Amino acid sequence: MSEKVSRFGAPDINALPEDIRERILEVQEKAGFVPNVFLALAHRPDEFRAFFAYHDALMEKAGGLTQGEREMIVVATSGINQCTYCVVAHGAILRIREKNAIVADQLATNYRTADITPRQKAMLDFAVKVSLKAHEIDESDYEVLHEHGFSDEDIWDIGAVSAFFGLSNRMAGLIDMRPNPEFFNMAREFKHE
Amino acid sequence: MSEKVSRFGAPDINALPEDIRERILEVQEKAGFVPNVFLALAHRPDEFRAFFAYHDALMEKAGGLTQGEREMIVVATSGINQCTYCVVAHGAILRIREKNAIVADQLATNYRTADITPRQKAMLDFAVKVSLKAHEIDESDYEVLHEHGFSDEDIWDIGAVSAFFGLSNRMAGLIDMRPNPEFFNMAREFKHE
Amino acid sequence: MSEKVSRFGAPDINALPEDIRERILEVQEKAGFVPNVFLALAHRPDEFRAFFAYHDALMEKAGGLTQGEREMIVVATSGINQCTYCVVAHGAILRIREKNAIVADQLATNYRTADITPRQKAMLDFAVKVSLKAHEIDESDYEVLHEHGFSDEDIWDIGAVSAFFGLSNRMAGLIDMRPNPEFFNMAREFKHE
Amino acid sequence: MSEKVSRFGAPDINALPEDIRERILEVQEKAGFVPNVFLALAHRPDEFRAFFAYHDALMEKAGGLTQGEREMIVVATSGINQCTYCVVAHGAILRIREKNAIVADQLATNYRTADITPRQKAMLDFAVKVSLKAHEIDESDYEVLHEHGFSDEDIWDIGAVSAFFGLSNRMAGLIDMRPNPEFFNMAREFKHE
Amino acid sequence: MSEKVSRFGAPDINALPEDIRERILEVQEKAGFVPNVFLALAHRPDEFRAFFAYHDALMEKAGGLTQGEREMIVVATSGINQCTYCVVAHGAILRIREKNAIVADQLATNYRTADITPRQKAMLDFAVKVSLKAHEIDESDYEVLHEHGFSDEDIWDIGAVSAFFGLSNRMAGLIDMRPNPEFFNMAREFKHE
Amino acid sequence: MSEKVSRFGAPDINALPEDIRERILEVQEKAGFVPNVFLALAHRPDEFRAFFAYHDALMEKAGGLTQGEREMIVVATSGINQCTYCVVAHGAILRIREKNAIVADQLATNYRTADITPRQKAMLDFAVKVSLKAHEIDESDYEVLHEHGFSDEDIWDIGAVSAFFGLSNRMAGLIDMRPNPEFFNMAREFKHE
Repeated sequence: MSEKVSRFGAPDINALPEDIRERILEVQEKAGFVPNVFLALAHRPDEFRAFFAYHDALMEKAGGLTQGEREMIVVATSGINQCTYCVVAHGAILRIREKNAIVADQLATNYRTADITPRQKAMLDFAVKVSLKAHEIDESDYEVLHEHGFSDEDIWDIGAVSAFFGLSNRMAGLIDMRPNPEFFNMAREFKHE
Repeated sequence: MSEKVSRFGAPDINALPEDIRERILEVQEKAGFVPNVFLALAHRPDEFRAFFAYHDALMEKAGGLTQGEREMIVVATSGINQCTYCVVAHGAILRIREKNAIVADQLATNYRTADITPRQKAMLDFAVKVSLKAHEIDESDYEVLHEHGFSDEDIWDIGAVSAFFGLSNRMAGLIDMRPNPEFFNMAREFKHE
Repeated sequence: MSEKVSRFGAPDINALPEDIRERILEVQEKAGFVPNVFLALAHRPDEFRAFFAYHDALMEKAGGLTQGEREMIVVATSGINQCTYCVVAHGAILRIREKNAIVADQLATNYRTADITPRQKAMLDFAVKVSLKAHEIDESDYEVLHEHGFSDEDIWDIGAVSAFFGLSNRMAGLIDMRPNPEFFNMAREFKHE
Repeated sequence: MSEKVSRFGAPDINALPEDIRERILEVQEKAGFVPNVFLALAHRPDEFRAFFAYHDALMEKAGGLTQGEREMIVVATSGINQCTYCVVAHGAILRIREKNAIVADQLATNYRTADITPRQKAMLDFAVKVSLKAHEIDESDYEVLHEHGFSDEDIWDIGAVSAFFGLSNRMAGLIDMRPNPEFFNMAREFKHE
Repeated sequence: MSEKVSRFGAPDINALPEDIRERILEVQEKAGFVPNVFLALAHRPDEFRAFFAYHDALMEKAGGLTQGEREMIVVATSGINQCTYCVVAHGAILRIREKNAIVADQLATNYRTADITPRQKAMLDFAVKVSLKAHEIDESDYEVLHEHGFSDEDIWDIGAVSAFFGLSNRMAGLIDMRPNPEFFNMAREFKHE
Repeated sequence: MSEKVSRFGAPDINALPEDIRERILEVQEKAGFVPNVFLALAHRPDEFRAFFAYHDALMEKAGGLTQGEREMIVVATSGINQCTYCVVAHGAILRIREKNAIVADQLATNYRTADITPRQKAMLDFAVKVSLKAHEIDESDYEVLHEHGFSDEDIWDIGAVSAFFGLSNRMAGLIDMRPNPEFFNMAREFKHE
């Protein structure tokens, strides 16, 4: 593993607390490699546990948003926040979730012109507003999403995913976290029709 | 409790999962009231658990930053993010931690002119950069803090507190979380010399 | 008086021109101390006279805005301009005018979520627009305020208070004017119901 | 006088308070016409008196800045604030003061590339910082000006002129104050060598 | 020719390629002097040819916009981009095209308050949006212009003129291109009625 | 060809002027498809000719910048301008020029953390400054690049490529130009070592 993981290096996996090592081995088995966010954050076991507990609570729960839509929020807001790690790693996951080879790159650059539904466009308008000026969110923003069929709980999900990845984007900038080379070209084989 | 807690209301404490109810009762016993962030986030038990685990990992750990300095980061960055909940609640905590009646209001408006040390000013310059443009952080930012005696681990702490409260600020904006009236005037009795 | 008043120090009150000394002694008798803006600006007697003549013309006149509402404009716009002197000193005055212990801190951080009326919210939207982008004010902005019952003269007042404190905020930044310690915790005894 | 003066019209000069009428007649005699700022602000006699007292205190005093340099500050900051009244009216005055037909238009668009001295460039850098982010002014800004030979009193002048015209720019935007046609092409006869 | 043309100087006209020399002599004959943009860009003959071919394709074609309106777009967007060369040179051309001595200075500072028609105001709103945030242009922007009678082809023209002078503004900044003194006061003799 | 090319559709290739049709057929033979920029701009033959003449003058000339470095400028500035067409199409070309599967995605999101040389980082700092605030370029910016070995002519190239693609980005936003699906995953086979 000669690639740079982050400014704080990467830990010796075998020296990590049991639960963290297991989580890392589990994701390695599933993905074929260990995404650098696991290695970089393992430098701080308590923060690692809280980060992934938060991540899982938002990204793997049931609800009105599909998993692909959650990843759309990550990619669009991370693009605006200029976070290479999140754009590249979650761009790959989005391609897999949506079985779509191009939508991630579209969303990363300018979600306004991506090939998504008007409902997804409204979802991303809201997510970006939470990311850039959450202090201006008011009831009229909720109403726009209600018109697109989102419930209040869905809106919490949209905003919370945006807020959580705002944290993630800032951590990646703070520690110069690097995406694994595997992510860049993963899942690009989907046929665009 | 007639005050508004958040757009999503407040849960019936007795209906909450055991661990969350206990955490809430514990803070109530200590503070004399339940800060609204506990009630507001209890709407989502899994997110509640992750949020406070993350919070505790950053705010109650040992390290090169005092607890008061961690609160300074919260107040200064939350002021810039225009988050009333965090400014008011953590302003109160900061007054207690620093035994200082005025530094919180100074930091909330313009940390550059607050009565703090040059080292603390450098700490806040960095925290604000993480909050506003983490994608521009580079090695020269680390060097400035090294000159003020901060270690790499301290710098992680500074940035991580800023990043975590960036999440918190956005959640507060998303759900219109309101500070308890008790916070505004708490701990203002310290003598300014 | 060991506290810093401003980068330009504080004048010897007895050496000041008669009219300025009288104004200062008058405010001292009324407030119990001399707000630093009087001491700082006395460094320039002609500017002192013009400044307070302007201030009085805007803040103590009759009209459609209450004195409390004028102070709301000061606090909200000064918060956005990150002016600690004006936020702290006029926050205290606002608490007194409104007999309200918390609205000043709310307005200083994010006026959009303060406990004010929709009419006051519209007033502050306009005041902030004058403060940040007066060159974009047009007839549609007047119409919004007319709908809330403001007359053209009221709108002049709103805008002029915002413009005048824009000057005041910049002077405070220029000379590093510091709020007197007395202001921070003044008038915080009002009961919040 | 069929030209629009401002959104609030122009007063009947004969109905104005004596002192204001005299000031207006005096400027008319000197300039050959009445600049609209006098007519527009006469709508509010007390504000008129304070405004021009402040103006005169800053613009007609002795000190380390020439009158032309004071006008440079007005034109450069008003250009950035997109205030047509101040750019056009004070552009004309600047041409007269400097006996220079082109420097006003240069400063109004981009002071950085105008034909001015390095000392004047430093003066305008500071004036623009006061106009746009006075809350970030610190001792290092003073030091730069000291190196160019400005005294502390000169720096107060630079900042105060910038702050005062920030007020003026906002008032002009608020009431849609229009420059007299005479100003646009006044004093353009100076030879450029 | 002692005036500075640009950071890259001015070429020896006689050493230029034939077609470029002819174009320069032609404009000199027509204008009485050689606008510096011709001298500055002649440093790169291929770029010179492409630049003026693009310019002519946009500015001298027939279509729904008058030549004066095309110049309005240039002046308004160049003012916002703080490009002295384009504001001054095209301000002069605009005065000639519109036989109007003041509209250029109005547009250069704040097009919103210039004496233009509502249709021209809408045209400039769009041109400025293309200049500052073309990535946010969508169908609703086209609809606003359709309501003012602009065709899709007119809208292409508006946006393309804005985009082309965005390039021109950046080139002028890059090479510090200076407007000829002749431009500043050219065509100011038109009577304002 | 059922994909959307732009808001203005795509022309009938056979109805195009001879020189434009030939250029299109030539690029089709070379690339295997017609990049949409050729189809979209063919709607305006004169602009098409000027655009590609300018493009070729900047991108295919000899000089101190490699072709790959020119494409780096395009991708980095287009990412900041949120132009999906240019990021995707020139990202593909950059992968080919540099034989590198990942640098384009890195540059599109945050050039500051891409795997490039310090010299290339300085080149992109300058290119981005030209794109965002060309009016602030001054001699000190040239000096930084001189220290990295760039000549004045190289610096013109860097700035001119940035300026030209600023035009291109705005045209793409104006007409909603869409990248061909072929570009997204082109040339991703390079081995990352």
